[in-house]
Amino acid sequence: MTKQMIIGMHLGNGYGSQPGAWRMPGVDPKNFASFDAKVRYAQAAERGKMQFLFLPDGPSHVGDIGNEAPHFNLDVMMTLAAIARGTERIGLVATGSTTFNEPYNLARSFKALDIMSHGRAGWNAVTSSGEDVAANYGQRIPSSADRYGRAHETVQLVQALWGSWGKDAWVHDVESGRFANEDQIQPINMGGKYVASRGPLYIPPSEQGQPVIFHAGGSPNAHALAGRFANVVIGATFTIEDAKAQRQAFRDAAEHAGRDPDEIKFIAGMMTTIAADRRAGLDRKIALTGRTFPQRVRYLEQMLGVPLDPSRLNEPLSKQQLAAARPSPMDPRSRNALKIAKEGWSLSDILAHGVIDYHPSIVGPGVEAADHMQEWFEAGAVDGFWISPDVYQDGVDAFVDGVVPILQERGLFHRDYEGATLRDHVGAPAQYGIDPRV
Amino acid sequence: MTKQMIIGMHLGNGYGSQPGAWRMPGVDPKNFASFDAKVRYAQAAERGKMQFLFLPDGPSHVGDIGNEAPHFNLDVMMTLAAIARGTERIGLVATGSTTFNEPYNLARSFKALDIMSHGRAGWNAVTSSGEDVAANYGQRIPSSADRYGRAHETVQLVQALWGSWGKDAWVHDVESGRFANEDQIQPINMGGKYVASRGPLYIPPSEQGQPVIFHAGGSPNAHALAGRFANVVIGATFTIEDAKAQRQAFRDAAEHAGRDPDEIKFIAGMMTTIAADRRAGLDRKIALTGRTFPQRVRYLEQMLGVPLDPSRLNEPLSKQQLAAARPSPMDPRSRNALKIAKEGWSLSDILAHGVIDYHPSIVGPGVEAADHMQEWFEAGAVDGFWISPDVYQDGVDAFVDGVVPILQERGLFHRDYEGATLRDHVGAPAQYGIDPRV
Ligand SMILES: Cc1cc2nc3c(=O)[nH]c(=O)nc-3n(C[C@H](O)[C@H](O)[C@H](O)COP(=O)(O)O)c2cc1C
Ligand SMILES: Cc1cc2nc3c(=O)[nH]c(=O)nc-3n(C[C@H](O)[C@H](O)[C@H](O)COP(=O)(O)O)c2cc1C
Repeated sequence: MTKQMIIGMHLGNGYGSQPGAWRMPGVDPKNFASFDAKVRYAQAAERGKMQFLFLPDGPSHVGDIGNEAPHFNLDVMMTLAAIARGTERIGLVATGSTTFNEPYNLARSFKALDIMSHGRAGWNAVTSSGEDVAANYGQRIPSSADRYGRAHETVQLVQALWGSWGKDAWVHDVESGRFANEDQIQPINMGGKYVASRGPLYIPPSEQGQPVIFHAGGSPNAHALAGRFANVVIGATFTIEDAKAQRQAFRDAAEHAGRDPDEIKFIAGMMTTIAADRRAGLDRKIALTGRTFPQRVRYLEQMLGVPLDPSRLNEPLSKQQLAAARPSPMDPRSRNALKIAKEGWSLSDILAHGVIDYHPSIVGPGVEAADHMQEWFEAGAVDGFWISPDVYQDGVDAFVDGVVPILQERGLFHRDYEGATLRDHVGAPAQYGIDPRV
Repeated sequence: MTKQMIIGMHLGNGYGSQPGAWRMPGVDPKNFASFDAKVRYAQAAERGKMQFLFLPDGPSHVGDIGNEAPHFNLDVMMTLAAIARGTERIGLVATGSTTFNEPYNLARSFKALDIMSHGRAGWNAVTSSGEDVAANYGQRIPSSADRYGRAHETVQLVQALWGSWGKDAWVHDVESGRFANEDQIQPINMGGKYVASRGPLYIPPSEQGQPVIFHAGGSPNAHALAGRFANVVIGATFTIEDAKAQRQAFRDAAEHAGRDPDEIKFIAGMMTTIAADRRAGLDRKIALTGRTFPQRVRYLEQMLGVPLDPSRLNEPLSKQQLAAARPSPMDPRSRNALKIAKEGWSLSDILAHGVIDYHPSIVGPGVEAADHMQEWFEAGAVDGFWISPDVYQDGVDAFVDGVVPILQERGLFHRDYEGATLRDHVGAPAQYGIDPRV
């Protein structure tokens, strides 16, 4: 069988990745507080055989709350608990900071989710870098060395706790009255410079043993942490070249840690506005985010290095402007922005293409998303994608019905789940407790 | 309407309060890891119109794991998330330590549960006192002054975070495009000796505003904390006199804090083995815990102050033994133990009466439980009970079908939920943010 891609879906505030998603027709503006809605969107992703849901998290709110919804879930673990009860196969990955959480608490809640979901949990073990987050804990963000130092200790300790109730410890044998083999339930007595715990944790293995480690981070310290522990990297990248370089950095780090580099999958972000054709997609995007375009023009100016007039959103760049434009070397999205501008689109349409979105953005028919994914995948730039639909209400179905069948037709994406656990879905090898090879 | 009692139910490891519950016929010995089972037991309690479920928690395991299940849930918040999705009315109360959790994390997860359950969440805000728990965080248990000092700050800060997204802040008005009134979403910027947080929390009010505060603790420091913040006290007491004294201490503390003492309800523990008659109840209890009786006889000796022979479990105390017996002043259960002994029951039957259980134990027909509850309630010793069924699998239904109807018939317990929220169920006044009266 040829190698196939992994697809995950970002699940955030209950509306979608576009700021205007909450006020679109057909969207319940109260979805921020609706666990039902999130379960429905998760079910839609599962219908599309996606391997996992990815819930980012940063316990804080910053942003234009007057006009836009907060980005995160009310609480990622509670959201995934609801989804675990309402889905059967899809993997459930939540972000949990190693900077502001106790290892014992992380170990317990993620392993409980793993049991609850019958082996579908993943932990995106990140370091927190926002001072807004730190302030919610009455603290400041530590140095990168301290953040990643604590992260190494925390992941190691959590995995030790996961394995502290031995794999075969839970016998629950009614006949003999033996509940567990106590000699397989041992304290871990681990501690380092930052965190410590005695253990044991009192939770038996799940169907996949223990949760899968994900990571998201860009620095060499992040590579080293992921290389040692992660099976999946949640990536952010705008070009095939950069994706290749990032993927290689993580693979190198894994090898450096004594692991098979194929055990670490690099998954790139992608934003989707799937519509009947390009024009319909652009109009949808304008309805969603057009309000922000006048300010965004200012940013586009910097990317292209030419003055632009926010009062003339419906006009394309002039010949003179196009001739003078130079993609900013400070922003990897600039080359694509200039390419779109040269196609003759209006200022509004250029922005509607998502040229300053957080990830490469597909605005148009499903085949364009499939082409993008195929190109990157076959270039060896990524092992898959995590998609951020513009509006969950119909954007998940649009991807599932408009993109997934094309990828399946081309042999790039599986037609059904091969196994029952997240470990199966992402090809992560069996592991229980601390990886003895590391 | 005359005053009626509140009834809560303890929900622990998935088996029941008796050590042998996991291996009883009809019980799935894998229930420790089954969220389905816990949802079923919660639904049974809700059928009985019980006001709340109480989930104790202490992130640790101590005990005879070879023969007995751990006492606690895998994770109380994940368990209540599952139950929130599977029930409609019953209150959902989890224990969360103020000693080893960050206020921001507590505030977020409990308020998410409150949203998810449509206003049914309660937080049993305790201080941790076990060194086994502290060791799981690489720490030692602080002094009582420090534990309660941190508890005061933590509860205050959590309530401030709950109110930091103003009551009417969330407008989600599609027409105008206003998501929220940002002037009603303000940082709290609170900090003390132990904890601090900037806020705001980004979660709107629930149907009950914010979760209800419970407390469990016995010291004067516990009285003061509960008196200031709690609406419900989870109590442990063996006699009407002691219950009266405890209830009064909490009421006095509430008054001292400037509150109406009727705003704090004292709820006593009670263990139930409901059966067709006393003999059937005793036999059930013997099947459940008889294995432990030979050791427990040693403890009964100390309670009664006479030597007893564990090899003669099926014989009653002799005339000489009964004449020499003196209830130990060290153990408030001793007088009841002697009373039972004098009724002529065998050693085994005395223990099967639950005379050394953690709470007063009813072993017999439902009417005996109802009589006990009526006597305590009418004596003004309690505002209600939290019951610990011996085995959840059939013990919840036994209480719901065998005790609840009698209490309803006598006008002591409601026939249906009066309202939709936990605040309604326990008569806790409306509150959002910090109580301005305190
Ligand atoms: C694609 C991606 C997703 C991320 N998601 C989160 C997140 O959900 N929560 C969070 O606190 N940090 C998140 N981060 C931030 C990283 O955890 C980290 O704090 C940041 O990249 C700075 O770390 P560095 O020093 O390794 O670059 C994410 C980073 C990337 C690249
Ligand atoms: C009825 C009752 C239930 C309790 N439940 C818990 C619990 O679930 N988790 C916990 O950590 N402590 C629990 N406690 C312990 C108290 O929180 C506290 O640590 C202990 O009573 C010592 O505190 P004190 O100094 O106030 O007596 C409970 C106490 C009582 C009386």
